[in-house]
Amino acid sequence: MKHITIQQLSMKPDRYKAHFINSLSGFKSANLIGTINDQGQTNLAIFSSVIHMGASPALVGFITRPHSVSRHTLENIKQVKQYTINQVSEAFYTQAHQTSARYLREHNEFKETGLTESYIEGLRAPFVQQSQLKYALKLREIIPFSVNDTQFVIGEITDVICEEQVIKNDGYIDVESLNTVSVSGLDSYHLSTRLSRLSYAKSSSATLGIDIHGNPLEGGI
Amino acid sequence: MKHITIQQLSMKPDRYKAHFINSLSGFKSANLIGTINDQGQTNLAIFSSVIHMGASPALVGFITRPHSVSRHTLENIKQVKQYTINQVSEAFYTQAHQTSARYLREHNEFKETGLTESYIEGLRAPFVQQSQLKYALKLREIIPFSVNDTQFVIGEITDVICEEQVIKNDGYIDVESLNTVSVSGLDSYHLSTRLSRLSYAKSSSATLGIDIHGNPLEGGI
Repeated sequence: MKHITIQQLSMKPDRYKAHFINSLSGFKSANLIGTINDQGQTNLAIFSSVIHMGASPALVGFITRPHSVSRHTLENIKQVKQYTINQVSEAFYTQAHQTSARYLREHNEFKETGLTESYIEGLRAPFVQQSQLKYALKLREIIPFSVNDTQFVIGEITDVICEEQVIKNDGYIDVESLNTVSVSGLDSYHLSTRLSRLSYAKSSSATLGIDIHGNPLEGGI
Repeated sequence: MKHITIQQLSMKPDRYKAHFINSLSGFKSANLIGTINDQGQTNLAIFSSVIHMGASPALVGFITRPHSVSRHTLENIKQVKQYTINQVSEAFYTQAHQTSARYLREHNEFKETGLTESYIEGLRAPFVQQSQLKYALKLREIIPFSVNDTQFVIGEITDVICEEQVIKNDGYIDVESLNTVSVSGLDSYHLSTRLSRLSYAKSSSATLGIDIHGNPLEGGI
């Protein structure tokens, strides 16, 4: 296998480095973040940095760059203190990707990409109608990462909207059956094929396969 | 679609909530973090929270819980200031999952799971020999997230080890061809099938498909 040092990589063009380094973390989640400002103007932007932080309280975080195309997302969240996260599926991944284009403030990514706003009672931030697993969050904290001038936005989940039949008895949501996509690098989108669910790991026994509902697999993995 | 409020969810058992909330962020990366302490004892632990932070400098972050089974990882990183991140592939995902068992300090996850330590000149932290895409990092910063008592560990990439043929001309690394797995929820592992790479999004034109090397696709997506 090839050993590449960061010094060797630094000789490459910026775009090469961006593709390369973005590939190293492995598969990333693909999510559209829906926001609205105090004037009622909505915004929609794709993020591959949405990350689970903890279940109690139910916290999700994502990284933003203040001067990037996602700056309107952050401005809106600061104003309204709420937003939505919408899982991207095969049916609209090209439209989701198109939201990363640099649209002017007065342009609306929903209209520009053909995605549809939807709302629930008591919440101002727009959902993406096309998404089959989505949730609303209230802003908890914005943490600046001085190391590279990014910001980490932490939200607490308040409402989840999901197809009921994909929620299994033990609480696992079968996102594969929703054709949820993942991202690798900057621009590659992927469907998934489940290898197996695995039992809770214990030092006293080997890992075992479990079925989609969380029950032991008869035949092993 | 079903609307579930966080109040409704709070009535469910902790394990149900953990499965449910862990499923919401979508597909996560599966990585083994390799560390060593000042006494030369190695540790290996699986994380689904490794996240790309930026390409220049090349930064990667992950979330730890101080009192979880991953506490040895954090202790070792604080001591030695370096660690490795190793992408998990189909060939050893059950062994990777088994590293999440609560082993005693004096037990070694490499030996317990049958994974193999490997080293490069000038670096103390162990790599996973079985991983076909792995990299070493030096610790940059540990940021406490007071909101749920977790910590965010930021490292700068110093060395990358990878099969050369999976690095494309534009820097994109074809992690799918390495059978790199993704995780959903707490315990579900998945292979991937590429839908397409997509062109850099511009407000003036529609998203187009590009091939694995980053060149325009003749026939569209």
